[in-house]
Formats: sequence, structure tokens, C-alpha cells
Amino acid sequence: MAIKAMVLERARSAKEAAGVLRTTPREQKDRALERMAELLVRKDAAILRANAIDLELGEEKGLSAAMLDRLKLDRERLEGIADALREITALEDPVGRVDRQWTRPNGMEISRVRIPIGVVGVIYESRPNVTADAAGLCLKSGNAALLRGGSEAINSNLALVEVLRTALSQAGLPESCVEMIPITDREAVLEMIRADGYLDLIVPRGGEELVRTVRENATVPVLSHDKGLTHMYIDAEHDPDMAVKLVHNAKCQRPGVCNALETLLVHAAAAKKTLPLIAEDLKAAGVELRGCVRTCSLIPGITRATDEDWDTEYLDLILAIRVVDSLDEAVEHIAAHSSGLSEAIVTTNEQAAERFLNAVDSAAVYWNASTRLTDGGVFGLGAEIGVSTAKIHARGPVGVEELTTYKYLVRGTGQCRE
Amino acid sequence: MAIKAMVLERARSAKEAAGVLRTTPREQKDRALERMAELLVRKDAAILRANAIDLELGEEKGLSAAMLDRLKLDRERLEGIADALREITALEDPVGRVDRQWTRPNGMEISRVRIPIGVVGVIYESRPNVTADAAGLCLKSGNAALLRGGSEAINSNLALVEVLRTALSQAGLPESCVEMIPITDREAVLEMIRADGYLDLIVPRGGEELVRTVRENATVPVLSHDKGLTHMYIDAEHDPDMAVKLVHNAKCQRPGVCNALETLLVHAAAAKKTLPLIAEDLKAAGVELRGCVRTCSLIPGITRATDEDWDTEYLDLILAIRVVDSLDEAVEHIAAHSSGLSEAIVTTNEQAAERFLNAVDSAAVYWNASTRLTDGGVFGLGAEIGVSTAKIHARGPVGVEELTTYKYLVRGTGQCRE
Repeated sequence: MAIKAMVLERARSAKEAAGVLRTTPREQKDRALERMAELLVRKDAAILRANAIDLELGEEKGLSAAMLDRLKLDRERLEGIADALREITALEDPVGRVDRQWTRPNGMEISRVRIPIGVVGVIYESRPNVTADAAGLCLKSGNAALLRGGSEAINSNLALVEVLRTALSQAGLPESCVEMIPITDREAVLEMIRADGYLDLIVPRGGEELVRTVRENATVPVLSHDKGLTHMYIDAEHDPDMAVKLVHNAKCQRPGVCNALETLLVHAAAAKKTLPLIAEDLKAAGVELRGCVRTCSLIPGITRATDEDWDTEYLDLILAIRVVDSLDEAVEHIAAHSSGLSEAIVTTNEQAAERFLNAVDSAAVYWNASTRLTDGGVFGLGAEIGVSTAKIHARGPVGVEELTTYKYLVRGTGQCRE
Repeated sequence: MAIKAMVLERARSAKEAAGVLRTTPREQKDRALERMAELLVRKDAAILRANAIDLELGEEKGLSAAMLDRLKLDRERLEGIADALREITALEDPVGRVDRQWTRPNGMEISRVRIPIGVVGVIYESRPNVTADAAGLCLKSGNAALLRGGSEAINSNLALVEVLRTALSQAGLPESCVEMIPITDREAVLEMIRADGYLDLIVPRGGEELVRTVRENATVPVLSHDKGLTHMYIDAEHDPDMAVKLVHNAKCQRPGVCNALETLLVHAAAAKKTLPLIAEDLKAAGVELRGCVRTCSLIPGITRATDEDWDTEYLDLILAIRVVDSLDEAVEHIAAHSSGLSEAIVTTNEQAAERFLNAVDSAAVYWNASTRLTDGGVFGLGAEIGVSTAKIHARGPVGVEELTTYKYLVRGTGQCRE
């Protein structure tokens, strides 16, 4: 009950601040963002002191070296966080943009205008830089942010939030534009995701279990991010060099992320020639291959894939490979197994490419490009608060534009409903 | 368990059909819609027979005359339903439209293209015409529809769906583009709204309790419709005749709907002159007035409003009236009590109007026009499957455009992530 009261109180403050932000001009939001960037570096001592406590507690708890590294802040990393805020400052403000404008026969003028969503709840895990990124993206798009970070980073996060709030206040904005839940109990998450009436959107950033918990229990709308089960399909007609290069990039450039390749589909007519080239390249890069029967007969010595492999997000240097008899079979495999984020076809046949682009229902579908390119920055959309595999509101990168919604403004001269 | 299996089986069929609809050209969808309109009239005997059973059962159950009237179909109403389908046929197909297109420095071409959402679940109450409307709007936007109507109309709905499916099949499309849950147990609704993986969106159309149940239990995203608590604010400077006319239209033209006026706010400087004119007009129209202290002193003999009145959706010839001291006070009252659908300001002062349009966070905000105008048809957006008071994805009228989502198509020449 005490936790519920605390969560609702923060949510209420954030909602009040959202009322102010709704009509805050770009200049003032940008001034606050610049101030945030400045203070993060100037007040580094306080932040690093708090971070040292988290690191010490993390070591006591026996966190892995990788986890501790993710948690760690230093002067350089703070400067990186400040730079990210400066990049957000430079983005265009989507608020107030008119999507469309038209006049009805009765003379009333309708315009559809972009506006902030309101209060965005962001639930995330260990990296403290998310605190500043999420706060900055929400502020730029005119939303108040209610943050709930992971328990390992709680001291760092609270110190960061204090600095961000000081910057808000120095720019003449309510500190409550950025609120943080100071308690890391699971119960706080459950209260937060059911606080409809206060929160307008929840963005969970974390592992599968966090996302599932949020989706199953939330009454507030969730912009969710499933795992990333990414496919590339090599069509019958293709450039083998390009195929080798794109598979390599999609699998190896950073295997631990959601748009990294997990399953390769190869047309039977292409398999004999190109699969061995791909296999050779990947083996040299240390990738473990698991293939269907036909793949195994073409690349001796690799593991046989089981049914489970087609549904596994390895996030590692492992690749499942299946030979298919047609583009349609590839599309069907993708429909059955993909998480709907990032898929690609490699082909020199334009008709095949367009058929694939049309038929595959993923947030980003590529022709002759790497699935790793699904990213707000790479797309030129600016920094992202997350990646959506939802079907509604926003798909793929979620940046400042996707953190807005719209309303209709109607200007009349006394029009009535007949 | 049997119910769950049945719901999932229908959902699975709908999902398969959605895979076909994703790439179905406009001509074929339109042919199916035309065929639906034709068959609804040609096969009227079977539909009216089923409807007679519902009416008989309804009378036995003691449904009110109003409920029975809503349930009733006849030749003329079937022709109305067919006409509505023809109007949907004539709408532009949003699928395939390119929202935006750009080229990145690395040479890849990105386009953001509108696509169907997938499977849309529609849960509604008594009116059988919703069956055809919902199926038609989903089909036009390339979505499969999983329908679940009210128990009172079950025989009519099943007969309608049979006709719609025959039309689909005659147009060469899978019958499963329209699926209906034949069981009206509440359990079927609960299974349906948790069938993520099959369903992509739920649109509940019905009373507050239905919407609440759906929102609290769904894991599938919900495009919800709250009650409609609609405000009109008469500013200090205004044309009294226009004020009387707009209040009258917003309150009286059809009081039982969500964009009908429930609370009137009047600036103190305007109250003395204009409130008595409004009161006189509304009293003549049979409207019961409930006022704040200051309102009561200006219009003797009316009931004193309680706190509850400011949060009540009367859906009846009753109006709550409050005198406020400023535009800001009006905006604050609206922020605290509105359901966020439809709000209006009546003023001759452009600056005040723009301030109100900017500050009020409702789906449709009016200057000198009636709140009753919030409607897909009136806005020129075509037929609507419902009205959204959600903050994300779609606000206000939900028509074929809002029943689509987007994906990014990326055409490259071998681009990799650096």
C-alpha cells in the first residue's frame, strides 16, 4: 500500500508536469536539455560517488564483469551521455507539426496536429545511461518521464535524476518533468503499469521476462519489444559476394542485439554454390552453424538443427540455416518464426525483391542490405528510446516522433451537426 | 478449455486469412465488399428469419422496447447496411501508401509504407449492423476480422456472417477474412483478448463495463473508448447568438452519444448576459440544468450541481453549468474532468481561441463549432469502426486509415552496418 501510494504520487507529479510541457516552446525544452548536458559533466563528482556505491554493492552481490562494466560510469562515459543529450537537443521538435489540413463543405477547417503523448513510463534494467537518454527523449517530445531503472544502478540513477531535475528547474520547467521511482521492488513496477489515468504509455526496455510481465499485467498501453528473431533469405538469383558480405555483417558485426541475424534461408538453386562460401566465411569468424538436412549435406560436419533452433534467438555466434524451394516458402518460414523486427532478401531479381518486401510483415524489410541497419540513428530518425515490435502506433525505432500522438483542431464559424 | 480451443482456432484461421489479405489488391477487396452488399439484400430471407428468432428470445427475456428496436432488422435496414458497405467500397485504400521516402548518405532508400495491422478483434453489443460495418472496414483496410457480438443478436450475427463469408469466397478470398465467435459466454471474450500471437488489436464497442473488462484483462493491444465527458467553454468575448446555437446543438441534437455536451463552462464576464439566454433556450427544449452557486444565482430555480455532476456523463437532457473566472480555469476544469474526446471554445477572440486549442488535450478541440461534429463521416474520413479516447495510435474517429500501421522498406546495394 505504501508502495502504491508512492508510485501514484510520483505519477501524479509527472502528470502535472506533462500539463506544463504540453505547451512549452521548443526553445525552453532545448535550454533544459543543454543545461542537462552541461550539469552532467560539471556535477560528475556526485554522480561518480553514487556510481561507486553501486559498483561496490554489485561486486558484493557477485555481478559478472560484463554486468559491472555496463553499470560503470566514468568521466568519459558521462561526456558520452552529455553528447547524446546534445544530439537530442539538435533534433527537430515534432510537437505542433501539422500532419494534414483540410476544409469541409460546411466551411470548418480541420488540422491534424502532433502533440506530446503525456506521461511516458520507462522501465529498464542496468545501464544508467538510459536514465538520461529516456529523460531527454521524453522532454524533447514534450512528455513527462516516469523512470524505473534496475536495482543494481539505483544510486547512480538517483544521482543522475537529481542533476537532470536541477537542469529542468534552472530552465524554468517543473522538476517533475522527470520523476524516478526510488524503490526497485517488483511491486513498484506492477503499480506503475496499472496506473492508467496517470500514465499514457509504458516503454519496457529489458529482457524477455520483464517485457512479458509488463505486457501481461499492464492496463496502461505498452509499446513493447519482443525478442528479435531475424531472417535473411538468399534468393535463386543473387550476387554471391554480396550474399557473403551481408550474412557476415548481419551475423557477426554485433551478435548480441535484436537485429542480428539468427536464421539464414537459402533458395535450393543457390545453395550449392553460395552456401559453402558463406559457411567458409562464417566458420573463419568463429560462427557455429546448425543446418537442415539439405544444408548438412552441403556443408559436412555441422550440427543438425532441431525444430527449436528455428525459434531461438541465439544472441551469439550461432546461425541456423535452412534450404527452401521457393521465395514463398521463405516468406512462410518467416511468418511462422520471425519476431517481426528486421528481415532481408538478397537478390538481383527486382520482381522477387518487391514480392518479398510486400509479403513480409516486419517493421523493417530489406532488399540487399543488412538487417543490422534497423536503428533510429542509421535511419536518420535520431536517437531512440527503444525498438518496437508492436503492430500499432510505432514499429521499429521509437524516437521523438514516435513519442508524439495527434489531435484534431477544428476552426469554425458556428457549424452544427445536422 | 473447449471455449479456449474454439477461440484460438477461429483466431488462427483469421491469422491465416490476414496473411492473404496483406497482399490482396484493392480491386479484389472492393469486389468482395460489393458482393457483400449485394448478397445482404438478396439473401434477406435467411437473415430476417434468424433475426426473428433473436427478437422472439429477446421478448421472452423481457428486453426493453428500445433494445428490441436496436436488435430489429428489416428489408430497409438491410439496404442501409448494404449502402454502408458500398460507401466503404468507395473509400480510398490506405494500404501501400507511402508516408515518407528518403535516401540515406550510405545510399539506401527508405520508405515508410502503410500496411494492414493483421487480425482485428471487434467486441460489441446488441446492434447487428456492426457485424457488417466492422467486417467491411477491416476488409477494406486489409485486416482479417474476428468478431464477437452480443448474445441478444447471436442468431442475426451468425446469419449475417454466413452471407459475408459467401461473398468473400465468391470474390476469391478466404472465408476466414471474417470470423465470428459463435459463443457469447464472457469466457470467450477473456480468451479472445489474451490471444496475443493471433490477434493484433482489440476494438471494444460497448458500455463502460465491457470496455473496462477488456482493458483490465487484455494482453492484446486495445483501442479503447472511454465514456464521453464533453465540455464547451463560453469565453468573455463571444457572440451570444452563436453561443446559444452551439450549446443547443451540442446538448440537444442527440443527447445519448459520446460527443454530446455534458458540462458548460462560462466566463464570469459573460455569464450575466449570456447564461440566461442559454438557460431559456435549453429549458424550452426540456433540458434539466444543474449549476454551480454562481449559476444558480443567475438562473433561479435550477438544481445545485454536486461534485459528482462534473464527472457524470448524463447521456440525457441534463446539463451541468459552471461559471469560471478565466480561460485557464476552464482549461483546468477540462483537464480534471474531461474524457478527452471532444471539447469546444466559443469566442470572438482569436488569441483566446488559439490558447484553448493548444492547451486542451482532447482528440478533437473546436473553436466556434459544435462538439457533436467529432465523427469520421463529418470529418470526411469515411465510416468509422469506433471512436478512440486512447492516447496512442489513433485518437477520435477510427476508420480505414487508423486500421493500418506501417513498415519500413529499405532498398539497398549491399549496405552494411559499420
